[in-house]
Amino acid sequence: MNPAYIFPNQYIDKAQKLAKLNQKNTVVWLTGLSGSGKSTIAKSLEQQLFADNFLSAVLDGDNLRTGLCNNLSFSETDRAENVRRTAEAAKILLENGFIVVVALISPLAHMRQQAKDIIGAENFLEIFIDTPLNVCIERDVKGLYKKAQNNQIANFTAISQHYEAPTAPFLTIHTQNQTPQETAYFLYQKILPFVKI
Amino acid sequence: MNPAYIFPNQYIDKAQKLAKLNQKNTVVWLTGLSGSGKSTIAKSLEQQLFADNFLSAVLDGDNLRTGLCNNLSFSETDRAENVRRTAEAAKILLENGFIVVVALISPLAHMRQQAKDIIGAENFLEIFIDTPLNVCIERDVKGLYKKAQNNQIANFTAISQHYEAPTAPFLTIHTQNQTPQETAYFLYQKILPFVKI
Repeated sequence: MNPAYIFPNQYIDKAQKLAKLNQKNTVVWLTGLSGSGKSTIAKSLEQQLFADNFLSAVLDGDNLRTGLCNNLSFSETDRAENVRRTAEAAKILLENGFIVVVALISPLAHMRQQAKDIIGAENFLEIFIDTPLNVCIERDVKGLYKKAQNNQIANFTAISQHYEAPTAPFLTIHTQNQTPQETAYFLYQKILPFVKI
Repeated sequence: MNPAYIFPNQYIDKAQKLAKLNQKNTVVWLTGLSGSGKSTIAKSLEQQLFADNFLSAVLDGDNLRTGLCNNLSFSETDRAENVRRTAEAAKILLENGFIVVVALISPLAHMRQQAKDIIGAENFLEIFIDTPLNVCIERDVKGLYKKAQNNQIANFTAISQHYEAPTAPFLTIHTQNQTPQETAYFLYQKILPFVKI
């Protein structure tokens, strides 16, 4: 065999990978306060996608802080770089055919706009996890709000830094009156047209 | 239906994705001088993998410089950060079940060691694309050696910065006496046991 015939000098493109995976690719970008439920919803969403034979990847802000973004602080400048790197990682996954679920506070509008610019507006579904601050403070699953209120943590979103709610998200989700599973199932149905061939 | 029953509170793990993709995952890390043939070999390797129904992703140093690493210079410190981010991106793809082909000069041993530490030694196949400097200079596909020799580009590997050849790579590949396609086919056969279930 002369392998030259089966080796064109180019990478396999996105369309070929999507055909193999039998899905469309998109980025589902969950923004909201700490404790709003982003990661929990992302987990449920990925479970539902996988059960229906879709391949997704989750980029979880907490996990990225231990890896790709482990040399960044929580200053506004570094948060912007954190969002930028996350968007670039999402783009790499997207270009390889994945449905990407991002769970990241991404507090300011200009940061999310940059993410959208990097990823491409046509593949960027902004989802606002709209859990009110007082509910997040009551939950305080990680005990971070208490620390932030006691000044043991600086630069904490909605305590010592601003959170700008999206003005025109693809979807706004209220988490108070339903389980994360119900929320994720609602979200799943909304994104299905963007991932199903 | 009560969706709660099908939504455990966790992400889909690597093993589940690998089972769906019907492959094992690994990182094939190509190191070598500028012009040694890394990207060309990566393209051929991905074509061969895809033809045999494997799903891979290529992280090409040149492409990353326009995205994830677009705020880094070519100083030694920034090159180390460039290698680190590339390794973290490779790890994300790896954790999602992909075979990852990295084409990156990654000039110094400690940089590649860090990449290996991030990715995990058991999933890190270091491939030395051992094209001699004089051959790379003769090829000079991108015209960069000429510019580096004329001091129009600073911090150029093997001209104004050091390249440390791997001392114990998984594989050393000589590119002079065979086509990139033949080289890639040879490499493909060597990595097959690491990707085939």
